[in-house]
This record gives sequence, C-alpha cells and structure tokens, in this order.
Amino acid sequence: MNYCSQCGSALIHSIPEGDNRHRHSCPACGTIHYENPKLVVGCIPEWEDKILLCKRAIEPRHGFWTLPAGFMENGESTWEGAVRETLEEAGARVEILHLYSLINLPDINQVYLMFRARLLDLNFVAGEESLEVKLFNETEIPWNDLAFSTIRASLNRYFEDRRRGEYPLHTEDIHRKLPA
Amino acid sequence: MNYCSQCGSALIHSIPEGDNRHRHSCPACGTIHYENPKLVVGCIPEWEDKILLCKRAIEPRHGFWTLPAGFMENGESTWEGAVRETLEEAGARVEILHLYSLINLPDINQVYLMFRARLLDLNFVAGEESLEVKLFNETEIPWNDLAFSTIRASLNRYFEDRRRGEYPLHTEDIHRKLPA
Repeated sequence: MNYCSQCGSALIHSIPEGDNRHRHSCPACGTIHYENPKLVVGCIPEWEDKILLCKRAIEPRHGFWTLPAGFMENGESTWEGAVRETLEEAGARVEILHLYSLINLPDINQVYLMFRARLLDLNFVAGEESLEVKLFNETEIPWNDLAFSTIRASLNRYFEDRRRGEYPLHTEDIHRKLPA
Repeated sequence: MNYCSQCGSALIHSIPEGDNRHRHSCPACGTIHYENPKLVVGCIPEWEDKILLCKRAIEPRHGFWTLPAGFMENGESTWEGAVRETLEEAGARVEILHLYSLINLPDINQVYLMFRARLLDLNFVAGEESLEVKLFNETEIPWNDLAFSTIRASLNRYFEDRRRGEYPLHTEDIHRKLPA
C-alpha cells in the first residue's frame, strides 16, 4: 500500500495517535487505511453418504480438490456467501444446515467459516474455477490431493462426526504459511 | 475509493473480465481492489450471575452500553481478537469458552462473532474507549441504553439460554442500517 485511495497522496506507515499498531495513513487528507482479515465462506454439500468436491481450475493449488468456498462479498451474509460460492464453483444448489467449522489462519489473515449443507439435486456442473465436480464417499476422498489444510481439517472432523451422528462446531487455529 | 493504492493512478469502477461484480480497478497497473466484509469479534464476560458491559466513550453510540468487541486485526485469530478487545476496552482478562453467536449485518458489511468468556478477576478498569465498565445481573442490564442491536440480540439469547443451562451457537441476520 503506497498511495491514498481517497486523495492519491503518498502514504506514511506509522502508529496513529491513540492507536497501538502501525497503519498506513495519509498525511494530506488524514485517512487511516486499516487492513483487516478476510472471511472465506463455504460448505460441505451432502448427498446421502457422499459429499461434493471441486477440482481447482485456478491457482493456488490448480488440479487439487477442495470444498466449494471463497471470499465473502459485501452485501451478503456468511451463509449467503457459502450458497453463492457453491453455485459459482460447483453449479450446485444447496440448503445451509448450520455452521460447522471456524478456522483461524492468522499467518495469512483469513478466517474460514464452513457450513454443513444439503445438496438439493444432482444437476451440478463445474464452474469457471473448477476442472471437475464430483461426489465422494469417505473411502473415495482424494486425501493426498486436497488443496488446503483447512479442507483436510474440515473433512477429517466431518467423517469422525458422521460416525457419531453429531456435528458440534469445531474451532481451530492453523498456523502455517500458504497453501493454507 | 478514487486512486490506486499501489501506483496512485485514478481508478475505474467496472466488472473485471471473468468476474460478475463491479470492482475498483487500476487501468495503469491492473490491480483490482476488492472490498470485503469486516469481522467484529468480542465476548460476553461472565462473573457468577453477572456479565461485564462497557459504556462507550466514542462514537457511534457514545454513552451507550455494549459488550467488549471491535474489529479483528491482521495476525490474530478470532478468539485472540476478542481477548484483546476485552483488555483494551474493559481492562479485563478473560478466558474464552466457545463461540456463542454469529451475526450477519449485510447492510453494513460486517460479521459479528461473539464468544462466551470467563472473567478471570475483578481488576477491570475502563479503557480509553470506555467511560465506565460494570458488572450487571439480568435485572440490572440497561436494556434501553444498549448501543447496538447485535448486543441486544446477543444478551436476550444469552439470558434465555442461561435459564436453560445450554448455550448453543446462535446464527442470525440483522437487516438494518446503523446503529447496528
């Protein structure tokens, strides 16, 4: 961050008065440009004993499998974002059941919120960001070809919970650099 | 958003290729400036049958009561942010118990994550952003002087749940303009 997005002046990087962190701020117009973590919202789409995964058509982790998820957009709720991402990436319609995992990734300033969801029909189709979309039961999951540690963590927990028939919220911190 | 924070050029507002939303992007260096919702993290600090509230010393809602909460910072987890905000606003040390409410505020591009927490001692003291910090039992809560609808929603649920002795996660969308 080099220039003020409000007035175009060169920014300084210092601790503003009354603050305790370095921020980018504008000496000309006074705007402080805060930077905050981003929310990634997605879901585990269920169909009978299977779940729906997407093979990534984009970097990072092109060719690896993931749950439908992506950056939450302004103007939507977390669960609306999860529904939207599932439609965009997997061409799949889901009904959100409940929040299932909260994963903090402080090293890359992201927070994942993954929901359990019910797949409403089998008319899914790979979106622009996916090479392939497919249902997997537990033994078929491509464990060695999963895209992110957040996805592996969510799926491990999910199948354990399914054996017990209970799906409590899981909260987890993952400290690791990319790929998360 | 008027100027590119990378190169200082004037931005355009259009739908980038392969996207489906208007974004601010830079015709000179090509940077797309995404804008995403912010996370507000906080807690309900418990001490016996009481909870800790802060009287706001800042706008919006100066002089109204709130739970300790604020914008999550880069480099921390959600629960670490809740602990930090509680220390900054109420001078209070807490142990986080579990996530208690997820509140979506799509009209103002915020997501609240409120945790149940255990107050560790009574050495709390108003921080710079608080006029006063005080323990309240249910009948003492200043219901007419609460700062935000998110706080009222969380507290209403909280006391209902406490009577039942169960604290399941509450997920809620609040569609309303400021004060949220």
